[in-house]
Amino acid sequence: MSTSSIPATLRMTPRDYQAFDALFELSSRIGATAAGGLHRLTASAEDQQVRDAFCTWLTRQGFDVKIDEIGNIFGLITLRPGAPWLLCGSHLDSQPLGGRFDGAYGVTAAAATLVSLARQLREQNEPAQYNLAVVNWTNEEGARFQPSLIGSSFFTGAVTLDEALACTDADGFTLDAALQAIGYRGTALPPLPLRAYLELHVEQGPHLEQQRKQIGVVTETWAALKWQVTFRGEQNHTGPALMSRRRDALLAAAQTIVAVRAEADRHGEVLHTSVGRLATTPNSPNVVTSEATVWIEFRSADEALLHQLRASFSQQMQSIALATATDVSLDRAQFRPRQQLDSLLAQRALHLAERIGLSAIPLRSVAGHDAISLSYHCPSALLFVPSVGGLSHNEREFTATEDLHRGLDLLMALLSDLLLEETA
Amino acid sequence: MSTSSIPATLRMTPRDYQAFDALFELSSRIGATAAGGLHRLTASAEDQQVRDAFCTWLTRQGFDVKIDEIGNIFGLITLRPGAPWLLCGSHLDSQPLGGRFDGAYGVTAAAATLVSLARQLREQNEPAQYNLAVVNWTNEEGARFQPSLIGSSFFTGAVTLDEALACTDADGFTLDAALQAIGYRGTALPPLPLRAYLELHVEQGPHLEQQRKQIGVVTETWAALKWQVTFRGEQNHTGPALMSRRRDALLAAAQTIVAVRAEADRHGEVLHTSVGRLATTPNSPNVVTSEATVWIEFRSADEALLHQLRASFSQQMQSIALATATDVSLDRAQFRPRQQLDSLLAQRALHLAERIGLSAIPLRSVAGHDAISLSYHCPSALLFVPSVGGLSHNEREFTATEDLHRGLDLLMALLSDLLLEETA
Repeated sequence: MSTSSIPATLRMTPRDYQAFDALFELSSRIGATAAGGLHRLTASAEDQQVRDAFCTWLTRQGFDVKIDEIGNIFGLITLRPGAPWLLCGSHLDSQPLGGRFDGAYGVTAAAATLVSLARQLREQNEPAQYNLAVVNWTNEEGARFQPSLIGSSFFTGAVTLDEALACTDADGFTLDAALQAIGYRGTALPPLPLRAYLELHVEQGPHLEQQRKQIGVVTETWAALKWQVTFRGEQNHTGPALMSRRRDALLAAAQTIVAVRAEADRHGEVLHTSVGRLATTPNSPNVVTSEATVWIEFRSADEALLHQLRASFSQQMQSIALATATDVSLDRAQFRPRQQLDSLLAQRALHLAERIGLSAIPLRSVAGHDAISLSYHCPSALLFVPSVGGLSHNEREFTATEDLHRGLDLLMALLSDLLLEETA
Repeated sequence: MSTSSIPATLRMTPRDYQAFDALFELSSRIGATAAGGLHRLTASAEDQQVRDAFCTWLTRQGFDVKIDEIGNIFGLITLRPGAPWLLCGSHLDSQPLGGRFDGAYGVTAAAATLVSLARQLREQNEPAQYNLAVVNWTNEEGARFQPSLIGSSFFTGAVTLDEALACTDADGFTLDAALQAIGYRGTALPPLPLRAYLELHVEQGPHLEQQRKQIGVVTETWAALKWQVTFRGEQNHTGPALMSRRRDALLAAAQTIVAVRAEADRHGEVLHTSVGRLATTPNSPNVVTSEATVWIEFRSADEALLHQLRASFSQQMQSIALATATDVSLDRAQFRPRQQLDSLLAQRALHLAERIGLSAIPLRSVAGHDAISLSYHCPSALLFVPSVGGLSHNEREFTATEDLHRGLDLLMALLSDLLLEETA
């Protein structure tokens, strides 16, 4: 493999930006909230609607559209039959009352850029080393169904189809049934050998804005430890039951939430911690809670710190259980190691950004992304554009249109560069 | 008013106990849980089923059945047209995964006892000063719809019909619509002047069992302060968002739950505190919670302590809001004062218990009951039978059949005594 230079003529045109703007606008309308955000949970009616609209758009633009067994949507443009693929994309699902940029930007940017690229290659009769594909991964968010990154993890073989389909939502509905209900439980696809996976995303953090940079090239990710923990106590009447006899699972959960935050305060910003989800039974004002489940996250670039927390925080939960006369169990534990993204691809992205006049810096990603799943499978690049105020998973999540377009410029440059490279 | 003696012949017969056992068994089957409890929320399908069965039973036993505007069910036996009424009852709704005795015992015991009493009066051609009625009050529990005690509070005029009907459940369904859906949104009834209201109930606390007594006669209730409090923060990504910038409403709620318990620990058993219900938005594992609502209860016989807590705990919630960068608002506050039940009626119940060979003691009730609502309206008696382990609002709530029957014996004695009293 060697480098090549970008033909000066391969770039986004005003018409291409307009096509992107229109497609992104279409996405933003489906599941739009009154406050300008997006509420488009995996396999919901809104997800079905945006998937239908996306497939229709791809077909009209000449993509060959395929749905795999977990509902991932692929739009294929064959340039060189039998050659490996350059795959670009992200996800169209959102958090509850989430933002319209998270995920949707990466899918629509990839689609619009590939259309532009394919058209220009045809017009200029340029040779291509690879084929082009866009993807919408199923259930990146892990909001309705846990864990997150299900579609991309199935694609790489990190989870089996059975595991992926068996995930259930809070009502006990499986992902299998939910995908069937919206008509996106597809069929097994032939293998798609990848030269590289490229993903554009909004940063969801403050660093690009603080450092006044236009592009962040992710070089590695933080590690994450995710726990689902259940405390079990005893239902009782909140009035007459003696305080000394109560076995209050919600009290145990509350002490845990406070303790999880205290860990972050103790370690400073090198450790991010949270409890974002809590489920209680029976959740009635005058009944002592019998069962409370908390979803805990510890994230750090320091894996050793997470291993140490795994031990010390387990002990702390045992102490909380003892003090509240509850039982505690670890229902699910997931450790996502710190992961390096492909350094050659990252360097290439930084170099190309400079070449086309964009200010770019290497960054670490705290959050998980489909590109992290893919990085275990093929060279993968994750490119960030700024998030105003670092705000994300929020209806007010925002990135200016010029910043969005700069991402497309870099994606076009990187794709062109890869596509025209001389293979070994 | 003067006292009278109970005719030796007016008492529950084996056949009457059997009728009660069968009716109580019928109630226990409708909404039964696998663990032997009851799940029969107000205006649910199960509530409709038990109401239908109860109305059918009453009609077959010769009661005149009436449904009022809030769905309270009255079964009337006219003995002396135009005279005041002796009303007995409780509620057929339950907590989620609750017990089969709480409420259902009081309704079925009243119904079976009134049938026996009316039959014996007819057979013996005894004169009666009053008419007899049994009642099932709507939404005593306050589980699906808050506040609790809606049906009895509407009956006494403590809440208006509009207020009562406008209560909503967690899905925003009004009590009005829910009652219409099950066919129990009745019509305005003529006034029902009451001589007294009598309610049998399981204790739901440990005192009778600990003191090895068969009957508790409630003389007064604890006061209660109930708050619904909402913290508002900001949705954000639990990964990249800096800890120092987070505005986590769930963290604020957790600190509140811990602080509510700390108040009880500080004051000992003279203060019972709880948070039984918590609602969060968006409740997704990797989103910082934007909104968390807690339902707080403080209960004590010491009203001054509750007034002091009202001030000090408000301050504490302000401090929590400040520390977590959230906003806090008090959505609803309810103060239920300490209430004395009619002392003449309580003395009469204690006296009659002794007369028929039951060991009885005066008790305070920590929990609210329909008899407390009624006590503002007419002389009211609240009679407890033991609860095994003091356990309630729990599927394992239990009272032995002999204890249940002893309650019926006392109810029969008290009703007979009242019914045959010489009026002034």
